Amino acid sequence: MATAGKVIKCKAAVAWEPDKPLVIEEIEVEPPLENEVRIKVVATSLCQSDLYFLFKDINKDIFPIVLGHEAAGIVESVGKGVTEFQPGDKVIPLFLPQCRECRLCKHPKTNLCEKKTPGQSGNLKDSKFTCKGQKLHQFMGTSTFSEYTVMNQNSVAKIDPAAPLDKVCLIGCGISTGFGAAINAAKVEPGSTCAVFGLGAIGLAAVMGCKAAGAKRIIAVDVNPDKFEKAKIFGATDFVNPKDHSKPISQVLMEMTSGGVDFALECVGNVEVMLSALEACAPGWGVSVIVGYTNLHDISIRPLKLLTGRTWKGTLFGGFKSKDGVSEMVKSYLDKKVKLDEFITHNMPLDQINDAIELLRNGKCIRTVLNVSPQ
Amino acid sequence: MATAGKVIKCKAAVAWEPDKPLVIEEIEVEPPLENEVRIKVVATSLCQSDLYFLFKDINKDIFPIVLGHEAAGIVESVGKGVTEFQPGDKVIPLFLPQCRECRLCKHPKTNLCEKKTPGQSGNLKDSKFTCKGQKLHQFMGTSTFSEYTVMNQNSVAKIDPAAPLDKVCLIGCGISTGFGAAINAAKVEPGSTCAVFGLGAIGLAAVMGCKAAGAKRIIAVDVNPDKFEKAKIFGATDFVNPKDHSKPISQVLMEMTSGGVDFALECVGNVEVMLSALEACAPGWGVSVIVGYTNLHDISIRPLKLLTGRTWKGTLFGGFKSKDGVSEMVKSYLDKKVKLDEFITHNMPLDQINDAIELLRNGKCIRTVLNVSPQ
Ligand SMILES: NC(=O)c1ccc[n+]([C@@H]2O[C@H](COP(=O)([O-])OP(=O)(O)OC[C@H]3O[C@@H](n4cnc5c(N)ncnc54)[C@H](O)[C@@H]3O)[C@@H](O)[C@H]2O)c1
Ligand SMILES: NC(=O)c1ccc[n+]([C@@H]2O[C@H](COP(=O)([O-])OP(=O)(O)OC[C@H]3O[C@@H](n4cnc5c(N)ncnc54)[C@H](O)[C@@H]3O)[C@@H](O)[C@H]2O)c1
Ligand SMILES: [Zn+2]
Ligand SMILES: [Zn+2]
Ligand SMILES: [Zn+2]
Ligand SMILES: [Zn+2]
Repeated sequence: MATAGKVIKCKAAVAWEPDKPLVIEEIEVEPPLENEVRIKVVATSLCQSDLYFLFKDINKDIFPIVLGHEAAGIVESVGKGVTEFQPGDKVIPLFLPQCRECRLCKHPKTNLCEKKTPGQSGNLKDSKFTCKGQKLHQFMGTSTFSEYTVMNQNSVAKIDPAAPLDKVCLIGCGISTGFGAAINAAKVEPGSTCAVFGLGAIGLAAVMGCKAAGAKRIIAVDVNPDKFEKAKIFGATDFVNPKDHSKPISQVLMEMTSGGVDFALECVGNVEVMLSALEACAPGWGVSVIVGYTNLHDISIRPLKLLTGRTWKGTLFGGFKSKDGVSEMVKSYLDKKVKLDEFITHNMPLDQINDAIELLRNGKCIRTVLNVSPQ
Repeated sequence: MATAGKVIKCKAAVAWEPDKPLVIEEIEVEPPLENEVRIKVVATSLCQSDLYFLFKDINKDIFPIVLGHEAAGIVESVGKGVTEFQPGDKVIPLFLPQCRECRLCKHPKTNLCEKKTPGQSGNLKDSKFTCKGQKLHQFMGTSTFSEYTVMNQNSVAKIDPAAPLDKVCLIGCGISTGFGAAINAAKVEPGSTCAVFGLGAIGLAAVMGCKAAGAKRIIAVDVNPDKFEKAKIFGATDFVNPKDHSKPISQVLMEMTSGGVDFALECVGNVEVMLSALEACAPGWGVSVIVGYTNLHDISIRPLKLLTGRTWKGTLFGGFKSKDGVSEMVKSYLDKKVKLDEFITHNMPLDQINDAIELLRNGKCIRTVLNVSPQ
């Protein structure tokens, strides 16, 4: 490409400060160094994790930053030593690397990896982005609210050229996270009873995962009853709004299931809901998985809740080894084994990102896909 | 027996009040009703759980009470409808019933049971014990600090007549609990690295379980270094006294193992140690099992500790279905596959129970076996 080896000037949505609207700016994106890949972002979606760091996290050192981590794009150019990718390849940027070489990548039970992609170091020096002479942080290393981004090749997944980028972008975070949480982390079993707390894209994907794993009963829990209709499409069989009950929601579920659910997935990011999800599990064998993200509060738990035989765990990116999982999920979508289109409630250009933020913040969308560059 | 059908007057160690020495008293023990079994206790040991309820628990409604739950004895007489047991059978009383019929007993993943043995109701009316005209509570339904006790047949395990009761009494709680925690709950894997926190009988049995499961490295952690010698006998390979380190113990273990242990078992009953045990686990796959008992405090935990892929669970009676597990453990002992003798550091008559309590309370014994009645 004509741009290879050069700094690219392009459009990005910059978060200069916490709690403020993003600003569409022209930024400079450096060319990829050794083992790096520069990607033209075609489509990106927003996930609640983007909003968490914009509005809620107490660490304000990450600003100014380009957010965004759920996207798909096309390789623009590659740095020295990159053999896995070529310009023109369709790819999904990964916030969890998979180097295939480190102690963690070689461990069959985890999807963590010891490597980092530039911008994941937290050190501004490593960022590839400049705006008005100032370095910008790269969110989770991905920063997909930009026309271009640069990642280490360990953090990029090549996908089937037939994949529609404005759909498979969702695989970059939410859908893999929720689906995998049910399949890989909870290991939902055929005939089981599940509860999913929170019916955003993550929770709905978890519902879809429970269904794919053969769950007999899937109880969808949300304080926003507008979400129930979608949950039905993905396989939920029961619908509970905690606000409709004076009893604690864990007790409501205990009673509905005569003793607790087999699997409970927390897809909200709220410590009280995390505790409710654990308490809703059957003593003796119930497994609760934390999927929602928050780092504001501790959870207070009485040891007896576990001593009576419950299991509590958490998962990042649904437990998928990232490169492998993304290829697998894209294939499943193309084979019509997992749904993606049904998660997308809105489409907009990148310029309207603040509208998209408000939709997600106010529970008015499942996923908004932002069209960043033409395919 | 001459005593069948009659109230038996016998000796028992009564806890009239919390925090006070037990008093050897003459008590009356009712004959067994339908489905009940009266047992002559031959040997009983003390477990930290007895002391917890004597000294620490905030609920004081359980007094006066006859403590004790780790014992072995001989059936004296049986009530109507009891076919599984006959006078003269060697048995172990169970604080967890196994009725084989309830929803929980039929569930392959739990050892909980919905049934209760008399005295587990918490209702004094159901107790079989009277002293000086006053009903006494039965601790965990077992109350083995007495020459006789009465249990529902669901809460009694028949054992091999060849079993020495003054040894296999330990199978009634501590050894099954610790061994099973490693085998059944943590599911320790061959070649793995384990940490066991607390080297009382429960912890040492957990060490023995880790070893039996093929662990390569077993790190024994105790604030009382006198315990390390025993831990070695059961298979521990490394010994850590948290008091020898200025860093938090979880960090010490992280460093010793370059990233955390595969399995960590908490056998102390202290919420801070429970948290340390979780934190000492490898992010990505580490499994921590709570075995120690306390109900005084909540544990405060940052969700990220789980979100990074750790698993936290708890277990009662080592996850063994109680009747099945006890028979299995007795057989393993007779086949020399599990050790018991090595746990026993002291033997005394029931009359000296207050000395035995002080030994356990001050970390001066592993297990003291009290000889209650002649075999
Ligand atoms: N573990 C991971 O790797 C990972 C990856 C992506 C996202 N996340 C996290 O997953 C969570 C969900 O993300 P999302 O994009 O689906 O968010 P979302 O905002 O679209 O969905 C959250 C849903 O939870 C519901 N909710 C809020 N409070 C509730 C309560 N008390 N009880 C029940 N439901 C309640 C909301 O109404 C909403 O429908 C966020 O915390 C996000 O940060 C985690
Ligand atoms: N889950 C169950 O079914 C079950 C059954 C029996 C006993 N228990 C519980 O297991 C625990 C152990 O029982 P036990 O009879 O072996 O007790 P014990 O008192 O003999 O052993 C406890 C050990 O922990 C050590 N310890 C104390 N503080 C420590 C710390 N901060 N770090 C490391 N080690 C520490 C002590 O020095 C002692 O060696 C108790 O809490 C008991 O109530 C649970
Ligand atoms: Zn996300
Ligand atoms: Zn790696
Ligand atoms: Zn039962
Ligand atoms: Zn015990």
